[in-house]
Amino acid sequence: MNQAIRIIGIDPGLRRTGWGIVESLGNSLRFVAAGTVRSDDKASLATRLCQLHDGLAEILHRQMPDEAAVEITFANKDATATIKLGQARGIAMLVPARAGLPVAEYAPNAVKKAVIGVGHGDKKQIQMMVKVLMPKAVFDGADSADALAIAICHAHHRQSVTSRLAALAG
Amino acid sequence: MNQAIRIIGIDPGLRRTGWGIVESLGNSLRFVAAGTVRSDDKASLATRLCQLHDGLAEILHRQMPDEAAVEITFANKDATATIKLGQARGIAMLVPARAGLPVAEYAPNAVKKAVIGVGHGDKKQIQMMVKVLMPKAVFDGADSADALAIAICHAHHRQSVTSRLAALAG
Repeated sequence: MNQAIRIIGIDPGLRRTGWGIVESLGNSLRFVAAGTVRSDDKASLATRLCQLHDGLAEILHRQMPDEAAVEITFANKDATATIKLGQARGIAMLVPARAGLPVAEYAPNAVKKAVIGVGHGDKKQIQMMVKVLMPKAVFDGADSADALAIAICHAHHRQSVTSRLAALAG
Repeated sequence: MNQAIRIIGIDPGLRRTGWGIVESLGNSLRFVAAGTVRSDDKASLATRLCQLHDGLAEILHRQMPDEAAVEITFANKDATATIKLGQARGIAMLVPARAGLPVAEYAPNAVKKAVIGVGHGDKKQIQMMVKVLMPKAVFDGADSADALAIAICHAHHRQSVTSRLAALAG
């Protein structure tokens, strides 16, 4: 592993989709960028999905990540919210896949375990730990901090898979 | 209304997305084409969403519809199925919207009302009535028949809106 891998984490939502990019080299992590793609809640659903698509596509074009990780979303109590989230998540997975990136999926508790150390915790703890793990990280809210946490989670998982493969090969 | 309007109806699903195209001119309806875009259920979710995207994009490119109509999906009892449906629906709305088509949404009971005459009925009744309304219609299953029903529903609704506007103008 002599090559830094650039990972985009995506926290999908119809109103706000957080994204965060880290570079992973061996055991080290470097913050690259983070932000939020917003959709206009006065626009039609189809237009909003286009806004998410175009926003994410532009970030991929600008930042050129190698791999993507998206949080697995679970059913909300509110069925309408679940459908909306599913629609946003469809776009969040489509954009990197169409760009040829492998797209990994992580459950929320796996993401929390990767950054907090345990499988539970609130948004404030995630933001704090993202800052501890990457002091230079700058994010504009809970969604982009979550997206960075997803990227960190993927960096850990792919790293442990790579180590295991190397151990097997060696 | 001297110009025929070509409408694509889409019945979204992760495994099978039905599509059906009709031409509407005044009160008459003409069947154009219908079919099903399938995704490979052994592939990753991201790949499957790409397959739906590419399949729908190719149909739009080939058939050049003017307007699109998608069924509003309601929550399933199974939350995982609801999320999957949401993801497929996100793609089904994105593709025509990115192609610049207006995308209308109809509830299942509105679609049934448009083809059966009442807001309830099963898939067999929909298939039968699509054949009654457009005897030349050919479809490869329940999903493409539903998609044709969605297109017919949109043809009726846009027609009544156009008539009302014409009446107001006159």
